[in-house]
Amino acid sequence: MSEKEEQKEELAEEITELKDLEDSESVSDELTELTKKIDEMDDQLLRARAEIANITNRNRNERELLQRYRSQDLAKKLLPAIDNLERAMATEVNDEHGASLKKGVEMTLASLQNALKEEGIEEIPAEGEVFDPNFHQGVQTVEASENAPANTIVQVLQKGYKLHDRVLRPSMVVVAQ
Amino acid sequence: MSEKEEQKEELAEEITELKDLEDSESVSDELTELTKKIDEMDDQLLRARAEIANITNRNRNERELLQRYRSQDLAKKLLPAIDNLERAMATEVNDEHGASLKKGVEMTLASLQNALKEEGIEEIPAEGEVFDPNFHQGVQTVEASENAPANTIVQVLQKGYKLHDRVLRPSMVVVAQ
Repeated sequence: MSEKEEQKEELAEEITELKDLEDSESVSDELTELTKKIDEMDDQLLRARAEIANITNRNRNERELLQRYRSQDLAKKLLPAIDNLERAMATEVNDEHGASLKKGVEMTLASLQNALKEEGIEEIPAEGEVFDPNFHQGVQTVEASENAPANTIVQVLQKGYKLHDRVLRPSMVVVAQ
Repeated sequence: MSEKEEQKEELAEEITELKDLEDSESVSDELTELTKKIDEMDDQLLRARAEIANITNRNRNERELLQRYRSQDLAKKLLPAIDNLERAMATEVNDEHGASLKKGVEMTLASLQNALKEEGIEEIPAEGEVFDPNFHQGVQTVEASENAPANTIVQVLQKGYKLHDRVLRPSMVVVAQ
């Protein structure tokens, strides 16, 4: 081998080495890139799954609330009808026609009260109870006495109603003070 | 360079080449593996996002339905009360007490009917209409005549009601045949 040829060969080897180095660097860059992308996607997947769980839970809660309080609006509108029927029940009647009418009113009232009860609507306990501003609205006061200690309800002017834990209408009451 | 040395060198080069080949094969395997994984994750992400969109839509529809028909159960239970009041309204009264009671019944009936109407509940049109088994229940028939062509409703025995498009109770009717 001549000196020139040897030099040529050395040079060629050097070039090959450089190329290999370059190649391996770009391959390693690509690997790093892909691994990074996988990490990012892993993160996105985790977040998407967490979102699915959140949405599902939130919607179940919303549905349960809607279901639980679904009768609220109609029930509120029925309260004046019940008041009317209760007032009608206080009317005295003198003949058979009146008695038959009153019997009809009584049955209607019972069926309305039953419908409300089945939907979770109850009268708010008031007379004799301790006044609670969450459930009672004080519209008059009387002086407290032995039979009516301060802060107890002595009379109910209009019945209040609640749907489960929600007040549809507070009781209008007279409170001892 | 001796012949032996040349052979040695050639062998070493061959070994290096083989190693490079091995390395590049395993690197290329790894790249293929990672790219495949990315494709799979891409697919999973797409599906997770489609699921989120589906759940969101389904839940909105469910909520709308719950909202639209929320009064259904309570309204159904009110119908007998309305029947009772309407029957009571047919009672004749002879004195002031009876008249006052009847006035109370009338007001109650109006307030109940109004509450139902506000919640989307309406009486099903029946008298004089063409009989429709989706809305009417035929309980008696009479012979068709000039005034009552076949398949029309000639009398309503009990009023029917619907909530939007849903029948709460069909009308009980007498049909011409």
